[in-house]
Amino acid sequence: MNNLLVAQSGGPTAAINATIVGVLEMVKLSENIDRVYGAKYGVKGILEENLMDLDDLKRSTKSLELLKQTPAAVLGSCRFKIGKSGSGDLQAQCARIIEVFRKYEIHYFVYIGGNDSMDTVYQLDQYCREQGISDIKVLGAPKTIDNDLVVTDHCPGFGSAAKYIATTVAELERDISVYDVPAVTIVEVMGRNAGWLTASTALARINGGKGPSLIYLCEHAFDIDRFVEDVREKTAGNQGILVAVSEGIKDSEGRYISELYQPNVVDEFGHGYLAGVGQILTQIIQERIGCKVRAVELNLMQRCASHIASATDIEESRMLGMKAVAVAFEGKSGVMVTLNRQDSIEYTVDYGYVDIKEVANREKTVPLSWITPDGHDITQEMYDYLYPLIEGERNIRFKNGIPNNVLLL
Amino acid sequence: MNNLLVAQSGGPTAAINATIVGVLEMVKLSENIDRVYGAKYGVKGILEENLMDLDDLKRSTKSLELLKQTPAAVLGSCRFKIGKSGSGDLQAQCARIIEVFRKYEIHYFVYIGGNDSMDTVYQLDQYCREQGISDIKVLGAPKTIDNDLVVTDHCPGFGSAAKYIATTVAELERDISVYDVPAVTIVEVMGRNAGWLTASTALARINGGKGPSLIYLCEHAFDIDRFVEDVREKTAGNQGILVAVSEGIKDSEGRYISELYQPNVVDEFGHGYLAGVGQILTQIIQERIGCKVRAVELNLMQRCASHIASATDIEESRMLGMKAVAVAFEGKSGVMVTLNRQDSIEYTVDYGYVDIKEVANREKTVPLSWITPDGHDITQEMYDYLYPLIEGERNIRFKNGIPNNVLLL
Repeated sequence: MNNLLVAQSGGPTAAINATIVGVLEMVKLSENIDRVYGAKYGVKGILEENLMDLDDLKRSTKSLELLKQTPAAVLGSCRFKIGKSGSGDLQAQCARIIEVFRKYEIHYFVYIGGNDSMDTVYQLDQYCREQGISDIKVLGAPKTIDNDLVVTDHCPGFGSAAKYIATTVAELERDISVYDVPAVTIVEVMGRNAGWLTASTALARINGGKGPSLIYLCEHAFDIDRFVEDVREKTAGNQGILVAVSEGIKDSEGRYISELYQPNVVDEFGHGYLAGVGQILTQIIQERIGCKVRAVELNLMQRCASHIASATDIEESRMLGMKAVAVAFEGKSGVMVTLNRQDSIEYTVDYGYVDIKEVANREKTVPLSWITPDGHDITQEMYDYLYPLIEGERNIRFKNGIPNNVLLL
Repeated sequence: MNNLLVAQSGGPTAAINATIVGVLEMVKLSENIDRVYGAKYGVKGILEENLMDLDDLKRSTKSLELLKQTPAAVLGSCRFKIGKSGSGDLQAQCARIIEVFRKYEIHYFVYIGGNDSMDTVYQLDQYCREQGISDIKVLGAPKTIDNDLVVTDHCPGFGSAAKYIATTVAELERDISVYDVPAVTIVEVMGRNAGWLTASTALARINGGKGPSLIYLCEHAFDIDRFVEDVREKTAGNQGILVAVSEGIKDSEGRYISELYQPNVVDEFGHGYLAGVGQILTQIIQERIGCKVRAVELNLMQRCASHIASATDIEESRMLGMKAVAVAFEGKSGVMVTLNRQDSIEYTVDYGYVDIKEVANREKTVPLSWITPDGHDITQEMYDYLYPLIEGERNIRFKNGIPNNVLLL
């Protein structure tokens, strides 16, 4: 028997299941693989021998179609990095994984995830090399709405999150523009260290809408006084403005604004309260300017809104799943598959791969040159980078008024 | 000249612009009307003579199609009730409105809005009757995501908000189910006094998803201890649960939980902090149960997410705009048009109207018999009421990756 195992890890996205679809489709096209397993809850599911047979899923055209529009991670996920503090001995964990692989005759393992998951791919591949195991191929497939993996032009999941954010911010802009009174709406977007998602709020302007009047990415030092002045300027004579802000904005010394200005307060029962950066900025505007102000947090919706997924993103995610299997069949191990944007008038990507140690534990942030000098907007280069990634709509299949999904767990 | 004026009022929705489309289409079908005006920012725009000619819009088939998918209020809106405290003398305001109507030769006025707007329709119609003015017809068209207008079976805007909420809660449920650790996600839904929107979170279960495990509407007395026990019970052996809660839940004496448990805290600079009910319940679960817990506020998105509007809702909203004009042409004044659900196997509505004084300043809340006796779910009757309202998807026209909208202001 020559079996393949796939697993998902890290935070949910709208695109991670499409990569499983690609894996299963590539297996269908080949005679190399006897059986496909899925590990439940990421690498934890391998350690605990918690696997499921994906043959029925592979055979069902309808399920594969629905899986491409199912958000989150159909096999479950984990926040677990082998060999890291608190999760046990690396050698023992790798040995246990190989033991499970042997038992289930798994010779190909595709792990879909972000930075931490790519580290697991790296560690496991290293272990195989050290142990002289050459008949197990370990592959990584990228996935993260944060878009912070290096080498690959962008990451599956990001385009769909960006499309949700651009669409939602355009709708919010319409919403807040209905009254002729000055008001500020602060939209807090995910991203502790990378501002890609926050930058995509600018795409809300693409059809003539005003979009956000101010955009603050976490890569650019955030100055409270400057921010208050920016808001004062933009609200002068204006009906209402939107401000987009990364959750991870920091001051010039790299300290998170959300921590610096956290109200260190407890109530009469000793309860502490943790405010998000949107709430903190709301409070500051209220005190210093005094106009109507509210915070909107896009929260978990930005990573799971499959109903408005980018067709480009879903198709690329699927193709990367296929590519991972193709690369494995060519005998590669310890690599992550990548999206390589081609220099051409029309947007095109090639599918490639990169040595996993070039990727693991690294982070790609927004180049400062893609932020305008005033620190509160993005440049044309950033628009050009972002725009193709949200292109295209999927023909979502609804049932009883809501999208139809595949549920495995 | 025999002109018609239309205006929008109250909070934005995904459906309010479809009613304008219906008004314009009905005018197109008749020879009664010479010109159509829109008042900017609701009745304020009439008082300030801030009108715009809608003839170009009326003539453009493409714009009318796009207007049906444009969120918020394309003419702008206001939170303004004539004759109410702070807004001036009722008689003087009505006289001013009639003066503007005479200047622009307006004989038909359609006001689209919720409770407050229907009061304006009532006051203005009363004024006309008292003054013996019989050549001006004043009509109301309902609109509110809160679904709290009486007589009409439901309100335009509600179905689309419910579809967004059901879709989003189904996605959130997928998102929070990926980890095999106990966790609570509290989804805060709009509704101070009416729990219709919160009830619609239950529709997330319709395709087999788990949906919310607990649903608390503002009509049912909320008991904190009972709530903690409910959560404790549902999380036992569970991976993660969703809890849906109306922003306006109250205790048995009718006091808002969000006010009762508001942390009466100020930080070292004397700043006060206002927490939403989702945050307050999050804090309580953290202290009493100690598991992972987070709050998600659906915020403004629930009223403006046109990209996932209910086709049923948009079509009914358009038809109500047509009905308002038809009723006016029949010589009626001081009425609001209504949706009357018919008793039949298949969902059907008739379009009717009701004397405005039956509607103005009244509020329709969820019948207690549609809440389960345990107080944390809805009954089958409520499902049957809700389900047809989210049925059907619109073929949204996208441009550059986001929905295309009509911008007039």
